[in-house]
Amino acid sequence: MSIRIGILGYGNLGRGVEAAIAHNPDMELVGVFTRRDPASVKIATAGVSVYHTDDAEKMQDQIDVMIICGGSATDLPKMTPKYAAMFNVVDSFDTHAHIPEHFAAVDAAAKKAGKIGLISCGWDPGMFSLNRVYANAILPDGKDYTFWGRGVSQGHSDAIRRIEGVKDARQYTCPVEAAVESVRAGENPELTTRQKHTRECYVVAEAGADLARIEREIKTMPNYFDEYDTTVHFISEEELQRDHAGLPHGGFVIRSGKTGDGTHKHIIEYRLKLDSNPEFTGSVLAACARAAYRMNQDGQTGGKTMLDIAPAYLCAQSGEELRAHLL
Amino acid sequence: MSIRIGILGYGNLGRGVEAAIAHNPDMELVGVFTRRDPASVKIATAGVSVYHTDDAEKMQDQIDVMIICGGSATDLPKMTPKYAAMFNVVDSFDTHAHIPEHFAAVDAAAKKAGKIGLISCGWDPGMFSLNRVYANAILPDGKDYTFWGRGVSQGHSDAIRRIEGVKDARQYTCPVEAAVESVRAGENPELTTRQKHTRECYVVAEAGADLARIEREIKTMPNYFDEYDTTVHFISEEELQRDHAGLPHGGFVIRSGKTGDGTHKHIIEYRLKLDSNPEFTGSVLAACARAAYRMNQDGQTGGKTMLDIAPAYLCAQSGEELRAHLL
Repeated sequence: MSIRIGILGYGNLGRGVEAAIAHNPDMELVGVFTRRDPASVKIATAGVSVYHTDDAEKMQDQIDVMIICGGSATDLPKMTPKYAAMFNVVDSFDTHAHIPEHFAAVDAAAKKAGKIGLISCGWDPGMFSLNRVYANAILPDGKDYTFWGRGVSQGHSDAIRRIEGVKDARQYTCPVEAAVESVRAGENPELTTRQKHTRECYVVAEAGADLARIEREIKTMPNYFDEYDTTVHFISEEELQRDHAGLPHGGFVIRSGKTGDGTHKHIIEYRLKLDSNPEFTGSVLAACARAAYRMNQDGQTGGKTMLDIAPAYLCAQSGEELRAHLL
Repeated sequence: MSIRIGILGYGNLGRGVEAAIAHNPDMELVGVFTRRDPASVKIATAGVSVYHTDDAEKMQDQIDVMIICGGSATDLPKMTPKYAAMFNVVDSFDTHAHIPEHFAAVDAAAKKAGKIGLISCGWDPGMFSLNRVYANAILPDGKDYTFWGRGVSQGHSDAIRRIEGVKDARQYTCPVEAAVESVRAGENPELTTRQKHTRECYVVAEAGADLARIEREIKTMPNYFDEYDTTVHFISEEELQRDHAGLPHGGFVIRSGKTGDGTHKHIIEYRLKLDSNPEFTGSVLAACARAAYRMNQDGQTGGKTMLDIAPAYLCAQSGEELRAHLL
């Protein structure tokens, strides 16, 4: 029998999860849940219905895992604990600083309901976190580096769009190649924010807008840009559509450490190069839904992160198959 | 209280484990066990005794985890099941083709004793296996590539040493850079054995030996060299000692996959660059010993691999600390 999945929220990430389920024959999409009018939402999977979120409660015996595709700022802190009281749930909560309190809320709700509440799945937090933990466990005497990009930051793109005179914008976060190479060479550099990443902005300005002012406002924007070397390119709307329509992303997690008397250095590197951030994140969420279902079947309950998942739970193959072919 | 560790076997790997324990304050080395005369074995850790393997049985209440540092060909198939009947055990069994039967033997012994029998820990099998499983779980529609090196293969070095007229030798396995780059570019190449790796041999010949014959015998040796492009360098004993004394290794695991309608490609890459293969492998075994102890404390028993370990078990920090700082 397949694992019956619900998707709550149908933006870029919800569509990414839907696409991932189609690649996993042991999973079945039961429904998409939305806060909008269900009649206004058209989904990609033939024969699957769109429901209002209010209907989810009545469908507890039809769904094994609900994947919650909301924003971390306001949606998930409310939604994940709420639905963890009804379903095994998976989310991609990514506000690192607030993970402990989000975990506590989801853990309480999931434990009470006898369900699994799996939070902060994706690639960072998620696969990058796993690689930080594995590398720290193996090389306790070492130093961690995380680089992001080259990829589109939606938060930074939105920040540019809020400037007066800006019609549209796309911001790429780029790792500084020299810094990555120094880390890879085991030089253990101390790197400032500016030395690790640069920011590239592609901006469509409104006709007659003061370009110099827009550029200045971007480059001096606190938190978002002022600590970085930022370049601003003004382009046409056509160029933005043609050259910057995608949502690529990726990055590197590197740990550099020593063993023995310190003579021997070791570099552990994990790297992602993603054509579509939401489709990759959705694929991680789908694998996590499989794990959440299986862990709950095995009697586990409560709040979890990817650090609590035995890797075999994520993969469709059996333990025997994994030992014979992938170990 | 620290986790009390025994090391069984004191070759390169046993010394690597010993070095790793010194970097992990939550672990304590209780003793090294050897089949040789204990008086003949001098270890690095002050104040720790060397025992004969026959004494291990009497020390079951003094040791939480026994790390078994033997060879995969003949030692581990006997030793790991034997000691799994007395201790939580960890080994680095690396004959991929025989993992299923080794797992079955260790599983039976460990289950009966109520212990954990954790096999095939290290980097391949081990960290590379984990990365193959994670990447397969996330991108079911894709292709795996594993490259090894540049690093010393002890098996291939030994094979050269068995040739008449060879005094000493060191063999490096090297990934073909063009193949790695093609995989990284998402080209999904079909690669033959020859296209993936080359073999570099540094050979010290006995005085007056027929160098042309030695080179020919190396290059045509079945299984070891005949399917590869192999280069042979004759060097002096001094040069071998000066330039090739270490045991570096490493490699790459790359999965290239597609999501959605196939438009979007993703590359997941895991890379190790190790100055000392035995010290790195020993560091993985030490982390695995921590996990074996904790899993057993949590009531788990039986045969396990790294695919069955929730990553948080490997790391000294608590779940709260990991969620706050590494997630």
